[in-house]
Amino acid sequence: MVSGDETTVALVLAGGIGSRLYPASRADRPKQFLPIGGEESLLARTVERADFADEVVVATRPRFADEIGDHAPGADVLVEPDGKDTGPALTYATHRLREAYGDDAVIVALPSDHYVGDDDAFRGTMAAGARVARETDRLVTFGVAPERPETGYGYIEPGTARTAAGDDFHEVGAFHEKPDAETAREYVEAGYRWNSGMFAWTPAAFLDAAAESPLGPLVEALDAGDPAAGFDAVDPVSVDYAVLERADEVAVVDAAFAWDDLGSWDALDRVLEPDGDGNVTAGDHLTIDAADNVVVSDDKHVSLVGVSGLAVVAYDDRVLVVPKGEAQRVRELVSLLSEEGSF
Amino acid sequence: MVSGDETTVALVLAGGIGSRLYPASRADRPKQFLPIGGEESLLARTVERADFADEVVVATRPRFADEIGDHAPGADVLVEPDGKDTGPALTYATHRLREAYGDDAVIVALPSDHYVGDDDAFRGTMAAGARVARETDRLVTFGVAPERPETGYGYIEPGTARTAAGDDFHEVGAFHEKPDAETAREYVEAGYRWNSGMFAWTPAAFLDAAAESPLGPLVEALDAGDPAAGFDAVDPVSVDYAVLERADEVAVVDAAFAWDDLGSWDALDRVLEPDGDGNVTAGDHLTIDAADNVVVSDDKHVSLVGVSGLAVVAYDDRVLVVPKGEAQRVRELVSLLSEEGSF
Repeated sequence: MVSGDETTVALVLAGGIGSRLYPASRADRPKQFLPIGGEESLLARTVERADFADEVVVATRPRFADEIGDHAPGADVLVEPDGKDTGPALTYATHRLREAYGDDAVIVALPSDHYVGDDDAFRGTMAAGARVARETDRLVTFGVAPERPETGYGYIEPGTARTAAGDDFHEVGAFHEKPDAETAREYVEAGYRWNSGMFAWTPAAFLDAAAESPLGPLVEALDAGDPAAGFDAVDPVSVDYAVLERADEVAVVDAAFAWDDLGSWDALDRVLEPDGDGNVTAGDHLTIDAADNVVVSDDKHVSLVGVSGLAVVAYDDRVLVVPKGEAQRVRELVSLLSEEGSF
Repeated sequence: MVSGDETTVALVLAGGIGSRLYPASRADRPKQFLPIGGEESLLARTVERADFADEVVVATRPRFADEIGDHAPGADVLVEPDGKDTGPALTYATHRLREAYGDDAVIVALPSDHYVGDDDAFRGTMAAGARVARETDRLVTFGVAPERPETGYGYIEPGTARTAAGDDFHEVGAFHEKPDAETAREYVEAGYRWNSGMFAWTPAAFLDAAAESPLGPLVEALDAGDPAAGFDAVDPVSVDYAVLERADEVAVVDAAFAWDDLGSWDALDRVLEPDGDGNVTAGDHLTIDAADNVVVSDDKHVSLVGVSGLAVVAYDDRVLVVPKGEAQRVRELVSLLSEEGSF
């Protein structure tokens, strides 16, 4: 890493697991390493479209560090002391990047396991967000115009419309947690945005806000040069909950691209092209009178006869069958598998 | 083989494939080689319970011949020129066994891929059937008292009750093909038996009847010492359709044991013990809110979340998902896979 004036640093977050995509995702093969909906892994594609920035740094947990180079050749890798969700991860990374790139850098934080529909539009939106962060010293979020009343995402309620040196944004009126179905319809009606989990900020703007948050002990330990103790001192928590929702000066920049967090198997319906029966498939398969299923496999051949609305996934020595509408429940499954040490 | 007077020969039929149990059954791994519902293969268990006979001979097609010894160590193996269903197979085998054991032998023909609930009762029934065949020169079938109005089996309508040297049997009034649901209920009501596909006969009784059947050209070629030409001269056909249903003097002996042909995956419901949710399972698995499923795997771990009434089977690099109620349709699937050379 080299320091520089007004450097824009893309911070690619690759420490998560994405366990609801089990059995494609496993403890040692996180979702970002999978080539979902493309030829290259989600991480590789994220790093490619991060070329709007001057520097690209991939942050991950120790367990995945050795494999980052397979997906992001040549990228700087920042290894977090432990996997503790996005709050501690972004606090640690922002602190480290301030050391490397100085106070005038802008950090654009990008999840490495999401779907983005238009890479060029993405680059434009991110560059604009970085300018707003630099110009206003606000914590910048990126809001996606909802395509449906999704209950799996958080929502951002926009406040006053503003511009900063030519870039449009809104002040954030409020953050809203994942809603129930009726509330989600109201949110969409009211023009709220999906919270995409991408952010832009200067080190000072973020670390000042984090110091006043439940992540304060971590900031303190980082300032004192003891990251391990800092990680021990805080619980796993999302950056949205710990910092963004408590901060005063938050902006939302509208995303000019289609987006999906690929959170669970039903998401593949939205990012892959269905066959004539509405099945979306990745891998060798044969269907007879089977409609509206998601069928994914590695080197296995999957046959469906007379079933509909299912996700059927075969990876390694594991098979999963779950209705698409209950795909979130893979979380329960992974919890049980983890307890018995077989996730 | 050695010839002997009044020898009872158990002829174990191991030339079929049992393709509706795909993907456990494959072109090179027929159903009788699988350990369904037990530790040993269906074939091994069939050979074990065939010890009521003086001799045990396993008949199979060329492709499976080398592996018979793994399941039936020491058994004589009779290799049919080709796999052409039970009509040609039993004609060929009966002809060969007459050469080996003489005209006074009785042959008891046993499918190698069925479930039998009580081996001792089975031995008693088979010995009785062999005696009836020897005493009356009839073609003897074995009828199972129906436990339900099954549409997947043929039925035998019993005629006049008779005895032969102390063994009870009925003349066969008529054979009935697999019925529809309503007809099946009428059959059960009327006291018809399931046709178990097991038989007993003397060589002369069977070959005389076969000579007058569509299998006549095969009998003729066998008499002339040219089995290959005989197989070429006939189409695949079941012995029931070709011979039994046309013969005059047929007997039915009541089976004193529970029986299932394990024809398709739903049959496992009837031969395995269900868990508390009604799932029957063989292999590593985890279920969450999943009920009344059949889950079978080799060395794979199968997870079901929120599904019911499915058969989910994972073997080798193959996975199958089908509602239990449509398990017969695996036949369509296998037909498509065979066309593309991947069964």
